[in-house]
Amino acid sequence: MTIDNPTPRSRLRRIPERGRYDRETIDAVLDAGFLCHVGYICDGQPYVTPTLYWRQGDHVYWHGARASRMLRTLEQGADVCLTVALADGFVLARSAFHHSINYRSVMLFGTAEAVTGEHVKAAALEDFMERLFPGRWRELRPITRQELNATTVLRLPITEGSAKIRTGPPKDDDEDCTWPVWAGVLPVQTTLGVPLPADGMPTETSEPNYLQCLPHLNLGHPK
Amino acid sequence: MTIDNPTPRSRLRRIPERGRYDRETIDAVLDAGFLCHVGYICDGQPYVTPTLYWRQGDHVYWHGARASRMLRTLEQGADVCLTVALADGFVLARSAFHHSINYRSVMLFGTAEAVTGEHVKAAALEDFMERLFPGRWRELRPITRQELNATTVLRLPITEGSAKIRTGPPKDDDEDCTWPVWAGVLPVQTTLGVPLPADGMPTETSEPNYLQCLPHLNLGHPK
Repeated sequence: MTIDNPTPRSRLRRIPERGRYDRETIDAVLDAGFLCHVGYICDGQPYVTPTLYWRQGDHVYWHGARASRMLRTLEQGADVCLTVALADGFVLARSAFHHSINYRSVMLFGTAEAVTGEHVKAAALEDFMERLFPGRWRELRPITRQELNATTVLRLPITEGSAKIRTGPPKDDDEDCTWPVWAGVLPVQTTLGVPLPADGMPTETSEPNYLQCLPHLNLGHPK
Repeated sequence: MTIDNPTPRSRLRRIPERGRYDRETIDAVLDAGFLCHVGYICDGQPYVTPTLYWRQGDHVYWHGARASRMLRTLEQGADVCLTVALADGFVLARSAFHHSINYRSVMLFGTAEAVTGEHVKAAALEDFMERLFPGRWRELRPITRQELNATTVLRLPITEGSAKIRTGPPKDDDEDCTWPVWAGVLPVQTTLGVPLPADGMPTETSEPNYLQCLPHLNLGHPK
């Protein structure tokens, strides 16, 4: 399945061979991350707000306090550009010019809509929690109506956008390849650290499995 | 030293106690990261472009191919919002509502200017390289005039913006603190992976120290 692409705003201009427009690639990048950057215009000024997100089916979701400027602006139908970028490694070439970075990124365009209705909104928040911490939602103190009312959930359809991916070694000019300097890829990765328990937990509280690995994100402790 | 803050666009509205406007805090966040998200408006549409950046003195710099839409738009004086966000940990509370994330972020506003002049531009690129990989610049095949001409370097003064930081444990409602579920912080961290050497290196090429740790970023291999 490909999305309605490329459009004038989603078509890659620079290094178009890195661009992908199929949902399988786009979804794989979205599902590997948890932090996006939401771009929007308010009073003629561009803003870029970092926030957590999750994908469910054909939409990307995010949420926040109802009073948020970003959420209030987008709820009213402002154009949004939602970007996810995952850094995978520094690419060290023999010349400064050919240095690069290995990355996976997605840029989505469109207008967001609010997820409304108590049950639908609660189900969306449950999806978010379960994606990160499987089994946690039902163990929590249940969400209240007041808490739901204070929370805005937005979603953006995955219908216009692109993925951009760089992988592999440096691409040096042929005549540079014997230059006596180390070249290659220095990977970077995101890993979990040692969990820090809160004060006051009942002593019999057990450590859930997701403290060792967030399975959906494939995010674990360093080996 | 504080910056000219807060202005209407840089003042934090949501959870203002997380906001900081002093240069020491802002610079520390900027210096701990390498990937920013640049927001700008082109033909009325917001775009958010991920790119590498570096700080030198009172400016944040970034660069790219001269043909880049983002760089061409910003070079002409368009308003920019440059955001850096570093995720430090998932904050797991006893209620869904009080879940959060520990993070350090900076949002800067203003207009960028092009760094021009061959020597000045080369010096800026050398700063960028040396910040990541100390000692590497002088070991590389020297940059050519053509490569410099094909590269745009922009900089944004650090004069308007804010940092926003969350640290510490979950802030549960008092009556929830004995709820029998694990609560605390699950740290996330960025670490280096095992270097992947490129094909064709002369056999006597030694591994530089920065493959073990990028000292400026305090980014090393997992312990």
